[in-house]
Amino acid sequence: MDSRHYRKGRMDNPTNYTIAINKLRERGVEVEDIAKITHELQTKYIKDLTLEVCIEHVTRVILKREVQHAIFVAIDLDVLAEKKMLSEPLQSIVESDLGLFGVDEILALSVVNVYGSIGMTNFGYVDKLKPGIIGHLDNEGKSEGRVNTFLDDIVGAIAASASSSVAHNYLG
Amino acid sequence: MDSRHYRKGRMDNPTNYTIAINKLRERGVEVEDIAKITHELQTKYIKDLTLEVCIEHVTRVILKREVQHAIFVAIDLDVLAEKKMLSEPLQSIVESDLGLFGVDEILALSVVNVYGSIGMTNFGYVDKLKPGIIGHLDNEGKSEGRVNTFLDDIVGAIAASASSSVAHNYLG
Amino acid sequence: MDSRHYRKGRMDNPTNYTIAINKLRERGVEVEDIAKITHELQTKYIKDLTLEVCIEHVTRVILKREVQHAIFVAIDLDVLAEKKMLSEPLQSIVESDLGLFGVDEILALSVVNVYGSIGMTNFGYVDKLKPGIIGHLDNEGKSEGRVNTFLDDIVGAIAASASSSVAHNYLG
Amino acid sequence: MDSRHYRKGRMDNPTNYTIAINKLRERGVEVEDIAKITHELQTKYIKDLTLEVCIEHVTRVILKREVQHAIFVAIDLDVLAEKKMLSEPLQSIVESDLGLFGVDEILALSVVNVYGSIGMTNFGYVDKLKPGIIGHLDNEGKSEGRVNTFLDDIVGAIAASASSSVAHNYLG
Repeated sequence: MDSRHYRKGRMDNPTNYTIAINKLRERGVEVEDIAKITHELQTKYIKDLTLEVCIEHVTRVILKREVQHAIFVAIDLDVLAEKKMLSEPLQSIVESDLGLFGVDEILALSVVNVYGSIGMTNFGYVDKLKPGIIGHLDNEGKSEGRVNTFLDDIVGAIAASASSSVAHNYLG
Repeated sequence: MDSRHYRKGRMDNPTNYTIAINKLRERGVEVEDIAKITHELQTKYIKDLTLEVCIEHVTRVILKREVQHAIFVAIDLDVLAEKKMLSEPLQSIVESDLGLFGVDEILALSVVNVYGSIGMTNFGYVDKLKPGIIGHLDNEGKSEGRVNTFLDDIVGAIAASASSSVAHNYLG
Repeated sequence: MDSRHYRKGRMDNPTNYTIAINKLRERGVEVEDIAKITHELQTKYIKDLTLEVCIEHVTRVILKREVQHAIFVAIDLDVLAEKKMLSEPLQSIVESDLGLFGVDEILALSVVNVYGSIGMTNFGYVDKLKPGIIGHLDNEGKSEGRVNTFLDDIVGAIAASASSSVAHNYLG
Repeated sequence: MDSRHYRKGRMDNPTNYTIAINKLRERGVEVEDIAKITHELQTKYIKDLTLEVCIEHVTRVILKREVQHAIFVAIDLDVLAEKKMLSEPLQSIVESDLGLFGVDEILALSVVNVYGSIGMTNFGYVDKLKPGIIGHLDNEGKSEGRVNTFLDDIVGAIAASASSSVAHNYLG
């Protein structure tokens, strides 16, 4: 599944889509990993929903400029924290994934908003339960030298946005 | 300009578009009035921007389900306040357009978010300066028996979202 | 537990606090019902957290002007929908608690934001799982003549905000 | 004016307040510069408002943990962009202060939300008109080797939040 299958929307950037997908892959996240969370979120409402359809919607979400920007900022901040290149106290806050930080959630909000406020509920839900790749990223982030403080929230936000996109498509 | 000219997007509802347009018209707001504000906001960045193009983008914004819902809630609350059908202290708060209310801004935010966070700046700007129809609604709302507490914010939010849509189209 | 125990904060309105509490009670919601959800959310992080402390934080949340305004709007819209006094299609959307509505979530967001973006996660979680009074309101809202479309989200948002308040207090 | 004059609120962090103030100063921003914008925003509503009072409210805003986190992230991203340490395409996006970026606005939103949605309007207004220090930062950011992409939005957001705080204090 690649972005060439899609009519370019006004808010889409196909070039940066490929870069975003590659950056996510370098951090261990595949579109299909995100789509599995979307599928899990929506399958209870849409009986015959396939993983393939969820992959399409995750792709549509990542095609959006604002989502790409959030991905770029999130991954750079995680990587810079791994390299100890943030200033204190931010370095320690991001390294330790401080629960009271809040900037990771607000960055995720900019992704969730792309498909309307109904995405917020799904985001909060997966951010709390950490299904699939989100839980993997969360655990991996606890290991020495690895920081996923921003990425796990962004992945949850993309999965939640794709769920909203699916809902608008099937239930709208 | 009507909604039939547009390919239906996943988040669009053409039936409710017509209802939303009629409700806005009943409250004295035409798509062109909103488009004029969008044009004023974007013409400094895009030299050859026409009002016709702004009308297209305002139409696209109002085609969106989440925007229509905000319009319906905003207009009903204004009308119910005119009929003194809200309970106290909400009735007095909405009637007097209390500056510290906040719910009018948050409802507008759900409209602005549809085209990403860049719309926030334009919303705040027009909400403060009240150009064109927004100023008219604001003044009209001060007259006996008329309440535009929610509507002027929603109109500003639609104009701001259309500006973001134009910006994504021309500058993206 | 009443609001007189608290120093008035800049954003607090003690008079409207009492009105908000009474309106919630008329709709079948006690501060303690909301505090139980907050307790359930935070007890895993703060071992010795008592329900009494959660009641204090829920009270602090409801003391805030912006939260009171969201409560007033939410309850009025539910009650007006019960009385069939909203215009179509809003009347049907609110009566049926349409999943794609979005305005209920955005109104809840104005409550959640009062204690920062970390509240979003807890809001989404309880909005999905519907523990305690939220589940009760959700079921009750499905019965003929009763509408809780906005209230269940507001209650979840208050519980989530109180959780953030508790977290800032103990973990800050 | 220092933070010791204030009762510590649940969401305040006095230690990081001092660090935040110093980081802002290193980037050429004094509390008084921000307070002047707040004063300009509120003096039309509150006749006898002094700059001293605005300084107090700006201080209160910067005492808040969530605001400090936004300041730390904003300044680090600007500085890292100056050092060409962000990855492409983010490096070019931040360096050029791309209008369609959106992450700067969303980070500012996390600051604005601290005093409720009424802050949004003031944020959008100053972000557009760029009074005082904001205009200075914006121009400075256009010069070779200097990046203020995130900082000017954060400063506008702090000024807008302080305006909300003043409004809640005087008009509430």
